[in-house]
Amino acid sequence: MTNERYDRGLSNMTATVGAAAEHVAASLSDIAPDFARYLVEFPFGDIYNRPGLARRDRQIATIAALTALGNARPQLEVHINAGLNVGLTREEIAEILMQMAVYAGFPAALNGLAAARQVFAERDKREAA
Amino acid sequence: MTNERYDRGLSNMTATVGAAAEHVAASLSDIAPDFARYLVEFPFGDIYNRPGLARRDRQIATIAALTALGNARPQLEVHINAGLNVGLTREEIAEILMQMAVYAGFPAALNGLAAARQVFAERDKREAA
Amino acid sequence: MTNERYDRGLSNMTATVGAAAEHVAASLSDIAPDFARYLVEFPFGDIYNRPGLARRDRQIATIAALTALGNARPQLEVHINAGLNVGLTREEIAEILMQMAVYAGFPAALNGLAAARQVFAERDKREAA
Amino acid sequence: MTNERYDRGLSNMTATVGAAAEHVAASLSDIAPDFARYLVEFPFGDIYNRPGLARRDRQIATIAALTALGNARPQLEVHINAGLNVGLTREEIAEILMQMAVYAGFPAALNGLAAARQVFAERDKREAA
Amino acid sequence: MTNERYDRGLSNMTATVGAAAEHVAASLSDIAPDFARYLVEFPFGDIYNRPGLARRDRQIATIAALTALGNARPQLEVHINAGLNVGLTREEIAEILMQMAVYAGFPAALNGLAAARQVFAERDKREAA
Amino acid sequence: MTNERYDRGLSNMTATVGAAAEHVAASLSDIAPDFARYLVEFPFGDIYNRPGLARRDRQIATIAALTALGNARPQLEVHINAGLNVGLTREEIAEILMQMAVYAGFPAALNGLAAARQVFAERDKREAA
Repeated sequence: MTNERYDRGLSNMTATVGAAAEHVAASLSDIAPDFARYLVEFPFGDIYNRPGLARRDRQIATIAALTALGNARPQLEVHINAGLNVGLTREEIAEILMQMAVYAGFPAALNGLAAARQVFAERDKREAA
Repeated sequence: MTNERYDRGLSNMTATVGAAAEHVAASLSDIAPDFARYLVEFPFGDIYNRPGLARRDRQIATIAALTALGNARPQLEVHINAGLNVGLTREEIAEILMQMAVYAGFPAALNGLAAARQVFAERDKREAA
Repeated sequence: MTNERYDRGLSNMTATVGAAAEHVAASLSDIAPDFARYLVEFPFGDIYNRPGLARRDRQIATIAALTALGNARPQLEVHINAGLNVGLTREEIAEILMQMAVYAGFPAALNGLAAARQVFAERDKREAA
Repeated sequence: MTNERYDRGLSNMTATVGAAAEHVAASLSDIAPDFARYLVEFPFGDIYNRPGLARRDRQIATIAALTALGNARPQLEVHINAGLNVGLTREEIAEILMQMAVYAGFPAALNGLAAARQVFAERDKREAA
Repeated sequence: MTNERYDRGLSNMTATVGAAAEHVAASLSDIAPDFARYLVEFPFGDIYNRPGLARRDRQIATIAALTALGNARPQLEVHINAGLNVGLTREEIAEILMQMAVYAGFPAALNGLAAARQVFAERDKREAA
Repeated sequence: MTNERYDRGLSNMTATVGAAAEHVAASLSDIAPDFARYLVEFPFGDIYNRPGLARRDRQIATIAALTALGNARPQLEVHINAGLNVGLTREEIAEILMQMAVYAGFPAALNGLAAARQVFAERDKREAA
């Protein structure tokens, strides 16, 4: 029996977060394998699959939220990368992060910018390799 | 002496949040009048004035952040209204709010949707008047 | 075609939160009807359906989390009620709320206790009617 | 047997928060009477009793923290009042609240200023009576 | 003069968090030795000493709260360990962490699961030694 | 044309946070150079420049807020250092951090104390050099 939600979720997830999809699944395989499945099915099979908001716009929302919350650095890095994957420019991402100073304070924005700097550097390194 | 940051900030602020710009200034006039000025100058004179991100995209980021933080209902209402003012559809706003369930939990999304429902109803009432 | 996740989710949700299940669905019917479905399917059809943790224990976790976050009063009330529905005593719920003073501060615990006082009073009133 | 921590705590608490000490005790008397005692003993019998920081300075810290957290409005009002009780001026309190825009965002500062406006008005009314 | 609260607190604390009790005391000995005493007395001498909630249930509440807050990784690790010490199974802890996706978002749950994976691996290593 | 806000901001910022002013500017130079300017202008040119609250009192507020938020360790370290720069004693800083246990929970206080311990040790090392 196939699971259509899972299949479309995995497709959406890979198109968005790239290789991070496999990393997170691997990290959950021993402790909570079903959670890896839920992560594919609900966020990416249900929410990101909805036609009402462009993929690029969804990443603006996610990057803003994770920066404002300020307590999920690994996921913020994944979604800054995802933002670039789905068409946001580095400049646009920096704008989103700066804007968070207004709504969550300067430390949240500074820590978001530090995450972006790291992600951008890693991409430069991969592309140079 | 004119203050160019203030002038462009007030213009951006009014174009974004509409009548809320006057309300917030009035509410601060006795207790912290300078803060009303800072609110015009920094968020709207500096950040929202930057060309690197479209006005509509800025509202996606703000609505997402305020929904995820979940502790600023008055400002969330202002910015849901602002989102409509700068071109987001009601459907797109609902999508942003639903997506926050993934990053900040279902209660944050539900409370964001309750704010949107109230804002939409108030606009319908004003438009019907 | 029936949706098994939805059916078992609605059953679990009703057994847990009682009449609040209908209220939240009604409140979402105009603005985000699909979200009412997701709320049934993922939290209650997937998570609460898992056999690995007793229903009573799940409510301990939820009451603790919502009290600590301190920004979701409506949902905290729903889940204090749910705690009583699935076998927690008022005394146990008060203990959970007091304990949150240690992990999230005295204001979070005080506001949690205020929510519980309201929920308990409403139940007393319903039972007296 | 007397409880010295409780006695000194009640004295410190009353000197700080004034009539709110009785209100919170009354609100807890049915649901968690021991918690009313803990609230006197630990925060006010232990922490606020320590000589290493002036009472006025402790209120600066508390007002700042509650404003930044943004999810404890009743307690923020109590402690803005307490700040005035122990020697902070209205101007100093407004400065603390404005400063929170830098560390927790403009909405947190705006909501803190709204709380202060309400507290100041209530004191004006009491004093005029 | 003995301090009964301290003695029973240390006993409860050691039974709950194990060796972490000594580590935290040592880490505070130079900077805030009294705080090490408060940590024994209030959380473990007052709250955890109360008979109204089972030790195991208290750990469910603490693990849930720290995971939802998402900003206290060292303490979350201590309390996942404590959960195992007082009778929660690894499976039950994983269930609590997964459930937090519903109330605090998927990143909070993922980061909680990463903490658990680390704690479980360290225990396996100690037991194998 | 000189920018008076920037100049007075840089002066206030250097007097407060010391060498961290340069570090943060350098870290932003490639990704968001304008944000380095805003950080000087708004927090330090506008807010910290206001005469209504003593510099020492401003640091009490900032240390308390960052400790309570618990998600901005780098900035907390900078501002503990700044507190010492503008006249707070180590003992007063430890008191502020301990007090946060009351308003944001023991983990927030413990993590704040860990940050202070690190900052104090680094200063001892620099002074011994």
